[in-house]
Amino acid sequence: MNVESRLSFASDYMEGAHPELLRRLAETNTCKSAGYGLDTYSESAREKIRAACCAPEADVFFLSGGTQTNAVLIDALLRPYQGVIAAETGHISVHEAGAIEFGGHKVLTLPQYEGKLRAEDIANCVRTWREDANRDHMVMPGMVYLSHPTEFGTLYSLAELTEISRICRENHLPLYLDGARLAYALACPENDVTLPNLAALCDAFYIGGTKCGALFGEAAVIPRHDDIPHLFTIIKQHGALLAKGFVAGVQFDALFTDALYFSIGKTAIDAADRIRAALHERGYRLAWDAPTNQIFVVLEQKQAAALSEKIEMSFWENVDETHTIMRIVTSWATQAEEVDRLIACL
Amino acid sequence: MNVESRLSFASDYMEGAHPELLRRLAETNTCKSAGYGLDTYSESAREKIRAACCAPEADVFFLSGGTQTNAVLIDALLRPYQGVIAAETGHISVHEAGAIEFGGHKVLTLPQYEGKLRAEDIANCVRTWREDANRDHMVMPGMVYLSHPTEFGTLYSLAELTEISRICRENHLPLYLDGARLAYALACPENDVTLPNLAALCDAFYIGGTKCGALFGEAAVIPRHDDIPHLFTIIKQHGALLAKGFVAGVQFDALFTDALYFSIGKTAIDAADRIRAALHERGYRLAWDAPTNQIFVVLEQKQAAALSEKIEMSFWENVDETHTIMRIVTSWATQAEEVDRLIACL
Amino acid sequence: MNVESRLSFASDYMEGAHPELLRRLAETNTCKSAGYGLDTYSESAREKIRAACCAPEADVFFLSGGTQTNAVLIDALLRPYQGVIAAETGHISVHEAGAIEFGGHKVLTLPQYEGKLRAEDIANCVRTWREDANRDHMVMPGMVYLSHPTEFGTLYSLAELTEISRICRENHLPLYLDGARLAYALACPENDVTLPNLAALCDAFYIGGTKCGALFGEAAVIPRHDDIPHLFTIIKQHGALLAKGFVAGVQFDALFTDALYFSIGKTAIDAADRIRAALHERGYRLAWDAPTNQIFVVLEQKQAAALSEKIEMSFWENVDETHTIMRIVTSWATQAEEVDRLIACL
Amino acid sequence: MNVESRLSFASDYMEGAHPELLRRLAETNTCKSAGYGLDTYSESAREKIRAACCAPEADVFFLSGGTQTNAVLIDALLRPYQGVIAAETGHISVHEAGAIEFGGHKVLTLPQYEGKLRAEDIANCVRTWREDANRDHMVMPGMVYLSHPTEFGTLYSLAELTEISRICRENHLPLYLDGARLAYALACPENDVTLPNLAALCDAFYIGGTKCGALFGEAAVIPRHDDIPHLFTIIKQHGALLAKGFVAGVQFDALFTDALYFSIGKTAIDAADRIRAALHERGYRLAWDAPTNQIFVVLEQKQAAALSEKIEMSFWENVDETHTIMRIVTSWATQAEEVDRLIACL
Repeated sequence: MNVESRLSFASDYMEGAHPELLRRLAETNTCKSAGYGLDTYSESAREKIRAACCAPEADVFFLSGGTQTNAVLIDALLRPYQGVIAAETGHISVHEAGAIEFGGHKVLTLPQYEGKLRAEDIANCVRTWREDANRDHMVMPGMVYLSHPTEFGTLYSLAELTEISRICRENHLPLYLDGARLAYALACPENDVTLPNLAALCDAFYIGGTKCGALFGEAAVIPRHDDIPHLFTIIKQHGALLAKGFVAGVQFDALFTDALYFSIGKTAIDAADRIRAALHERGYRLAWDAPTNQIFVVLEQKQAAALSEKIEMSFWENVDETHTIMRIVTSWATQAEEVDRLIACL
Repeated sequence: MNVESRLSFASDYMEGAHPELLRRLAETNTCKSAGYGLDTYSESAREKIRAACCAPEADVFFLSGGTQTNAVLIDALLRPYQGVIAAETGHISVHEAGAIEFGGHKVLTLPQYEGKLRAEDIANCVRTWREDANRDHMVMPGMVYLSHPTEFGTLYSLAELTEISRICRENHLPLYLDGARLAYALACPENDVTLPNLAALCDAFYIGGTKCGALFGEAAVIPRHDDIPHLFTIIKQHGALLAKGFVAGVQFDALFTDALYFSIGKTAIDAADRIRAALHERGYRLAWDAPTNQIFVVLEQKQAAALSEKIEMSFWENVDETHTIMRIVTSWATQAEEVDRLIACL
Repeated sequence: MNVESRLSFASDYMEGAHPELLRRLAETNTCKSAGYGLDTYSESAREKIRAACCAPEADVFFLSGGTQTNAVLIDALLRPYQGVIAAETGHISVHEAGAIEFGGHKVLTLPQYEGKLRAEDIANCVRTWREDANRDHMVMPGMVYLSHPTEFGTLYSLAELTEISRICRENHLPLYLDGARLAYALACPENDVTLPNLAALCDAFYIGGTKCGALFGEAAVIPRHDDIPHLFTIIKQHGALLAKGFVAGVQFDALFTDALYFSIGKTAIDAADRIRAALHERGYRLAWDAPTNQIFVVLEQKQAAALSEKIEMSFWENVDETHTIMRIVTSWATQAEEVDRLIACL
Repeated sequence: MNVESRLSFASDYMEGAHPELLRRLAETNTCKSAGYGLDTYSESAREKIRAACCAPEADVFFLSGGTQTNAVLIDALLRPYQGVIAAETGHISVHEAGAIEFGGHKVLTLPQYEGKLRAEDIANCVRTWREDANRDHMVMPGMVYLSHPTEFGTLYSLAELTEISRICRENHLPLYLDGARLAYALACPENDVTLPNLAALCDAFYIGGTKCGALFGEAAVIPRHDDIPHLFTIIKQHGALLAKGFVAGVQFDALFTDALYFSIGKTAIDAADRIRAALHERGYRLAWDAPTNQIFVVLEQKQAAALSEKIEMSFWENVDETHTIMRIVTSWATQAEEVDRLIACL
């Protein structure tokens, strides 16, 4: 058994699937489906995603995880001699074990501001490269990678994203957005970025499933049909083609039925808001303002140790000799009662 | 809905999971688990697999698909300047979209005999390379790839596998076995190769889940602990690390509870045997003798077209101007009634 | 000292440079030049090559060796998921230590006929791929690699090359030609393929320097300007950009002054013709008919051993238990007196 | 002709070879040599390099350029999942067009201090990685890259290099040193690092030829025999094996005859010292202290423009709105008279 008396707020991928997804998997379990995503469930999911994105021509592929989706799409969007611009704290920069470099590409890192890139830094990076007399000896910036929410739980505003997209298009840089936790952005009152916005502003993005209610799976969306030719083969070449693509298809079909994907993050945001309020009330300091399902709290190390005995959090980083940032994460599966217990521990 | 009036014997990955696996997924759905395969279900599955393989020290990792597992393990077993020996019809040679070459490695193809490699051909390949004055300008044979059952549905005998293993060890070539359909070999009376044999004779192999009763998942087994250092990171680098590793872990735990993995293929073999007997009785010609869940039947093209209206099979290849080989595949999910109907169509 | 009493006909890269190239290198040695091929000698060489090819818009780059040039241009011409079609005996298939696979690409081998590809085999290979229901799981044929002369010393006729080019264009496959020994083709009476033909029929090719009178260096020619964007950077990325590009530039400038490149192979062909005549007269058997500077003679093994004591040849392959093919190679540097001595040994 | 009335101090790779090297190339031009570096000149050069390094067992290979040598050796020293630690201004970090990433490896950048790495930063980088709970999701530091002189013209002291080597060994990190301009370090009074020191402290390094008197060529030294197995094949796989290896061999043989390599940089250092003294005298400001053949001078932009009309320098970077760093480079080929003229311009 996996039960712990200790509360766990360590991540948003600790439970299986949203009951509705599980129900649909059970219901369709013995139906015979075509392989490799060519089945009717996947097609239905694709149609619903296209509709939700107001992108009727979009290509949609289902992959099994985030690093994989990033590696495949970045490799597919870049020419071999190009690199991808990302925040120095971006997932691809730090926590993907060199998956981008495995595909032959440099990650060109820029400063981050609470996990976000700034449009002017992107413009400046490209200009600096273009004006460098040695630019032909350097890696050419070939695209931009963002995440929304970011690794810091923060959100781009529609204005920021629009400006980044404008800079990207001006410079012929495809814009790619990692939506591993997209449902938590969509459920957030502060968020003003919609799926149709993403489809209009990005050249590719993915709608996260693994952290947002699915057993596994990410939906890669290429808003303009055939913008990435032969992507099916590229996915296979990367070892990322699911033989039983319908297992992801059924889940995404359920996530986009009755707008489940738009409501599934609400529980997590409500829980996080309650925790944030309690932390604030009790005088805890947050490392930065993040409105989504991740809370970054600055703790004295003793306090951190004491709290960790009761609540599993994840270590983020040491601030100084005596202080540490710990991360508390809620999810679609977080129970109100768990939040009560957590607050009682503070 | 995905129901077809036409019978489908096109592949063994058309249904979801064996009911027992689905039951366990539902049962454990809300338990909180650690990520990345560090959970208790995965650990339990690992212990059961070690026991089944008589390999108490084995490292076991759960990946999501076969091409991915092949690409990861081959890349991990080879030095960058080495290639992998495989049958010219091997899955990695033909049907993985260049996933091995994507990792920088050449596939060194040898002739196949009903899908199988011969030990003497392997020995000869290495000797030829070694004796070639230009060998340092050539790709060094670095390991051997087999599949069991093969792409042709055929089986290695224990004697054959032992001899191949001997040749491999004599030549310091790691031996790797692709067990995408291993359950169907294990359920086959003709098969005399056991999991402990594989653990003793191979340096790495995988126990197929996707085609053998799981929603997805393959269990990579490295019989000697730490024979491939940092494999966790290599898996991540290839984009193959599952955040919710426990979803695969729960399924493999179920597959190795009450010896389910050893019985799950029985339905498929019984069904295939009934079909083979009926084909024989009605005078159909089989392309070659394959005792597992794949049947390769030679049909006149008209006959093939007529039969295909009633039964979905998969096209294998044209034999001559007027004859075609079609593949009929059974699985753990094949119903006796489907077999009756298929036989009635013959 | 490197002198041997034994004659050496082992290869065509045993001496330094043609005296005229050495003279020009000495003459320009202390002139200051720009780096990376941006110097005036390189530009002059480029202009002369463009003129010789009737390709006034051609891009020309100087690289240091053949395998390098093949690896760079093939990687530049292919999309990452594509492979290169080559003869099973092509240099890239066998003798480049996996340099093409290092760049992530599969070599798709076809049968050879005295070292040559046949247009119909190429057409068939593409058609087979296109018609295969599993083609999206396979490596897509992306270009064609030829060598002229081939590894067997044979030549494509203009008719053959025109037909191959036609098939390639029909199928949108760039055609690339490896001209490591091109000077020996051009000096051959049997040859009817000119540099303007190559520029018209190929999408890229290289004019060999290393084996044709230079200390080192190959001139990569892309007949249509900017057909391969950012090739300078791709060359750098492959570690193939020469800081002192002018050293290659000076040499190619000399090779294309007073048509030296068109006459430099004549000595080799005359010498090879004399040797072929003598072999024929004395009843030796040639393995196949090759009109260029490589002669492939079938010898009894005892005879081969005896002859090898006096003449260094290169071993090609064993024909049967008792016979061996040995290769005799002449070059621009072969002396008439060496040929006399060789003939006297026969 | 390439003569310019303008003085050129733009780089140290503007001329051909030292006269003695050219003389030896001419002298040996018609001798027949074995290919691929298996000739007697290369063997003689190897012996002399081993002696100069007090490394009698060293493996020595001759490659054609610096980026190539870096890419080959780094790829050979790392396991595929590892990255290379380098200064953020290191040549491999910025100016090799992603050649390291092309081989699948991340460059892990550390701060630079006048172009140099600090031992404590290396130790800290490894410790941070080791202590990070997510280290298995990150690129493992696998080796260290230094250059001596650095890109800033600065030198490591023997004490600094010894400390870095100690840290590397403590952490099982191979230490690799890029000696593109090594002759200029060796000719520098401030330098206390000898070739035997490099052989004792590094796991691999290269002795630069291209910038130090050769037409082209770098000598890769692996102090302990077979520390990098199959390096010949790895070189070939990277397209870096010279067919006429003897052309590099003859040049390195000459460079290591009568200690030419140890004196060849003296002219450059004397010239640079005269220029530095003159700059100082006339009140120019140097960007930092660099004792080798590169001088980095801070100029007002107008001043820079004016000076550039008379002297070709290379642009380094803008310091602020009105100031620029320009680089002045001397070489083994710099004439006293050129220095006089340059000084007269100041």
